[in-house]
Amino acid sequence: MSQHKQERAVRTRERLLRAAAEVFDTTGYAGASISRILERAGLTAGAMYFHFKSKEDLARAVILEQAADLDFPETESGLQQLLDMTGYLAVELKTNTLLRAGVRLAVEQNEVGLQEYSIYEWWIDRFRQELVQAREKGQLHPFVDEADFARVVVGAFTGTQIMSQVSSDRANLPELIAAMWRCLLPALAPADVVETLVIPAGGTAGTG
Amino acid sequence: MSQHKQERAVRTRERLLRAAAEVFDTTGYAGASISRILERAGLTAGAMYFHFKSKEDLARAVILEQAADLDFPETESGLQQLLDMTGYLAVELKTNTLLRAGVRLAVEQNEVGLQEYSIYEWWIDRFRQELVQAREKGQLHPFVDEADFARVVVGAFTGTQIMSQVSSDRANLPELIAAMWRCLLPALAPADVVETLVIPAGGTAGTG
Repeated sequence: MSQHKQERAVRTRERLLRAAAEVFDTTGYAGASISRILERAGLTAGAMYFHFKSKEDLARAVILEQAADLDFPETESGLQQLLDMTGYLAVELKTNTLLRAGVRLAVEQNEVGLQEYSIYEWWIDRFRQELVQAREKGQLHPFVDEADFARVVVGAFTGTQIMSQVSSDRANLPELIAAMWRCLLPALAPADVVETLVIPAGGTAGTG
Repeated sequence: MSQHKQERAVRTRERLLRAAAEVFDTTGYAGASISRILERAGLTAGAMYFHFKSKEDLARAVILEQAADLDFPETESGLQQLLDMTGYLAVELKTNTLLRAGVRLAVEQNEVGLQEYSIYEWWIDRFRQELVQAREKGQLHPFVDEADFARVVVGAFTGTQIMSQVSSDRANLPELIAAMWRCLLPALAPADVVETLVIPAGGTAGTG
């Protein structure tokens, strides 16, 4: 392919991915139709089949690329960074279409007929890295298993965002994530470390 | 209604609920059809409309009555009871059709067009009661907020069961819930209390 054709192919794929995310975010998987996605992207079926063979293919791409539009705040590494990342995600889930659709489809992927665990592994590893930094900074209790705890954070965040969506269309998500951290932090770090942290949307992290 | 007719109505509703749970568990909401549910129940549409007006009505009932077939182990009240309940749920999710379907639909209810937060509130309150017992027994750290922590446990369990379903069709769920508790318990109770607890599928709870 020429340079020009390659660039055009990348842009076409991008338009399809974003149009699919918009439709999945609004209507869910079952309610989404390829014709509506194509209409939204302003493209023909021929242009699509070069990149995606089916609605399922589009859903898989939206799941796997859910984090593509994120721009994580870079503060201090370690526990503060982990708090800031999850606080940022809680806010982004209100407006970031690719993230919203990707998280929704990841949770409902049983319905789609997919088994894409790799996106969960990606998040676990992302959070684990911050816990490893926290360990190196001497922030963690000696008994904390960084990989196990990172998986618990992904699980707790995933379940909490579902509960927030059902109860308030995600309006209370930042507040619920702040409450989650007030509960979890004492399992990660001693009180004198916890007191130095700031929980986004939750004030200071001291336990009293 | 006569006594006899009332009993028959209760049995009919029961058969519909269980047939719906079986079909939703296997095919999900979008894939389920009323005709398949009626066929499974051995009933006619006329018999159904007295109890449920639509597929959505059936889904709501399966969500709200997901715990109807559970028989929680009664051990010691407090933290051990909470561990035993979640360990029992992790095993039941492999075979208890009403629970499986109810949990699946609760997670995917966005897709169904429902907003039934009350089932999450029910679980939060169930777990909160055990934390209140734990408080009365002197098991908890002074700073633990029972209601907030109960919500975190429901969120973490919900997210963990999704991850287990996607990664292993729930085969590793008891083990993941055990790992979850090894991470969470130090946030709830001092080490000398944690050491007295037994985590189902996870050996003793000491943090080493």
